[in-house]
Amino acid sequence: MILFGPAEEIGAVADGVSVVDAPLSIAKDPDPARAVRANPDASIVRAVAAVAAGEADALVSGGSTGAALAASLFTFKRERGVHRPALALYLPVPGAGFLLLDAGANDVVRPEHLVQFAHMGAAYMEAVMGVREPRVALLSNGTEASKGPDTVVEAHALLEGTPGFVGNVEGFAIGTGEADVIVADGFTGNVALKVMEGTFAALMGAVRGAAMSSRRSRLGGLLLRPALRGMRDELDPEEQGGAVLLGLRRLAVVPHGSFGERGFARAIEVAARGVREDVAGRTHARLAAAGALRARPEASEAAASVPDQP
Amino acid sequence: MILFGPAEEIGAVADGVSVVDAPLSIAKDPDPARAVRANPDASIVRAVAAVAAGEADALVSGGSTGAALAASLFTFKRERGVHRPALALYLPVPGAGFLLLDAGANDVVRPEHLVQFAHMGAAYMEAVMGVREPRVALLSNGTEASKGPDTVVEAHALLEGTPGFVGNVEGFAIGTGEADVIVADGFTGNVALKVMEGTFAALMGAVRGAAMSSRRSRLGGLLLRPALRGMRDELDPEEQGGAVLLGLRRLAVVPHGSFGERGFARAIEVAARGVREDVAGRTHARLAAAGALRARPEASEAAASVPDQP
Repeated sequence: MILFGPAEEIGAVADGVSVVDAPLSIAKDPDPARAVRANPDASIVRAVAAVAAGEADALVSGGSTGAALAASLFTFKRERGVHRPALALYLPVPGAGFLLLDAGANDVVRPEHLVQFAHMGAAYMEAVMGVREPRVALLSNGTEASKGPDTVVEAHALLEGTPGFVGNVEGFAIGTGEADVIVADGFTGNVALKVMEGTFAALMGAVRGAAMSSRRSRLGGLLLRPALRGMRDELDPEEQGGAVLLGLRRLAVVPHGSFGERGFARAIEVAARGVREDVAGRTHARLAAAGALRARPEASEAAASVPDQP
Repeated sequence: MILFGPAEEIGAVADGVSVVDAPLSIAKDPDPARAVRANPDASIVRAVAAVAAGEADALVSGGSTGAALAASLFTFKRERGVHRPALALYLPVPGAGFLLLDAGANDVVRPEHLVQFAHMGAAYMEAVMGVREPRVALLSNGTEASKGPDTVVEAHALLEGTPGFVGNVEGFAIGTGEADVIVADGFTGNVALKVMEGTFAALMGAVRGAAMSSRRSRLGGLLLRPALRGMRDELDPEEQGGAVLLGLRRLAVVPHGSFGERGFARAIEVAARGVREDVAGRTHARLAAAGALRARPEASEAAASVPDQP
C-alpha cells in the first residue's frame, strides 16, 4: 500500500505501507476537472499517476469524489473494448441489495453504452460480490420492452436474450430484490440515487417525529431504538466501501469523505478483491461473449463528464 | 356532475348527479391508446367527449390512468400557447410537500417544454394549493447551472431571472421543502416518483421487520403504532386526489384506482377548484409575462406519449 498525502500529518504508518509526501490537496476545489489538470503535484493526481504507471493495481481515494473521478478518467485508459466508464454503487437494501450504474459518470449515453454497463455491472457483482449469474435490469418508466426513451428501448432490444437479462424495472424495484444490477444513464441513475437518499432521510425524520409526538410513542421509540439501529447499520453505506469506477484499466474505489476507518478498510478490500478476482478480465469476457465489444477506437468520443459527489 | 358508467350497476344517485349509461369499460386493456381509438363507446371516451363538448368543465377518472390520459390527450386541445401537456402529482411529504411534473406524460422534452412545465406547475400551486409565489426548481444531478444534460442546462438558462425560480435541485430535495414545484422530463420524473414509492415501501417494511425482531421491540412497535399511523395518514396519497394533467384546455384529474370514497371526493374537489381558480388562465398569464408562450402552432409535433399508471 502506498499512501499519498502530507507525510508530516500522516506520521508513523503500519508495516507494508509506504508514504509518498504529497502535501498539495485539491479536495476543496469547486472545479475538480480544472484542478486536476492544473495541479500535477496534487496528492490525488500523483496517486492516480502511480497507479497508471503500474506501481499499484487500484486507486482508493476518500478525498473529493469529483477530483478522484476526474483524475482517473483523464489518466486510466479504458478497458479493451469498453466505450465509456461508469460509476457503480452497491445499495445494501436489506434482502434486496443491488448495484446501480451509471450513478453519475455519463449524463447522456447511447444504447450500446447501456448494454456495456449491464455487462460491467454483472461482471462486478460476480467478481466482487460473489453473485452467481447476476440478474440485470434496465431502469425505465414501465416494464414493457417498448417503454422509455429510444435509448432505453434500443438497449432493451440489444440485451434481449442475454443470459441474466430480466428486462425493464421501474423505480419501485428499489427494495424488491428483483434485480442484482440496475442499469441507467448517469443522469437518471444519479437522480434515482439521491431521491432514495432524500426519501430515506425524510422518512427517518418523520419516524423520529412520530416517536416524539406523545409520551406513549416516546416510550415506544425508546424500546424500538436498538432494533432500528440494527436496521440502520445494515443500510450503512460504509459497509460497501463506496462507489466504484468501472470500465477503466485500473479500478478506482471512492469511499465517501465522511467514512470512518471501517469504510476505508472496506474500500481497500473492495479494490483488492476487484483486482484479485479480475473484474476487468471478466468484463471483457462477458462483452466478447455477447458481441458487445467496441469495434474500433473512438478517438473523437468526448470523455465522460465528472460527476458530483454521489 | 355527470357519471359515465354501467347505469344498472350504478343504481340510484344523489341529487344533482346524472348518469349516462356507458357499460363498455376499457380499463383492463393492456394498450390504452389503441383501446381509446378503437372504442368510441367506452365510458372513458364518452366522458372525455362530453367534457370536450363543454357539457362539463373537467374530467375525473379513477379507472385506468393510461386510458384516462390517452383519451384526454387525444381529445382535449392544448391550452393557448402550450407546447405539451404534463402530468403533475402533489407529494405530501410532511412539512415539505411539492408538486412534481412531468411525472410521466413526455419521455423526451425540449428546454422550452421544461420552461413551460415550470410555469404550469407554479400556476397550479397558486390556484389549487393556495401557495403564494411558489418556488420552482429543476431536477438535476447537481445544483450548479451547468449540471445535467443539455436540455436541463438550457432550460436553466431560459428560466434564470424568472420570479420564484430557485435553480436546480438534486434528488435529495425530496423532503427538504426547498421547492414547491420540481420540474423534470416525464421519464426522469416517473423514475423519481417510483423510486420514492419503492424506497418508502422498503423502509416501512424494514421498520416493521425491526419492530418484530424481539419482544422488546414488539412492545415498542405497539406503543409507537398510533403515531406511525398518523404519519402514514399525512402521507396518504388519497388526500391529494391523484395526478392532474395540466396544459390542456380541460383539466383531467386521475385518482388512483385503489382510492376509496375520500380519494374520489378529493379528486372532484381538486378538479372543481382548478376550474374555479382558473389554472388555465393563470398558466397563460404566467407564460405570457415570461415570454414563454408557444410562438405558432406546431401541427407536426407528435402527441405526448401515454404514461403508465403513475
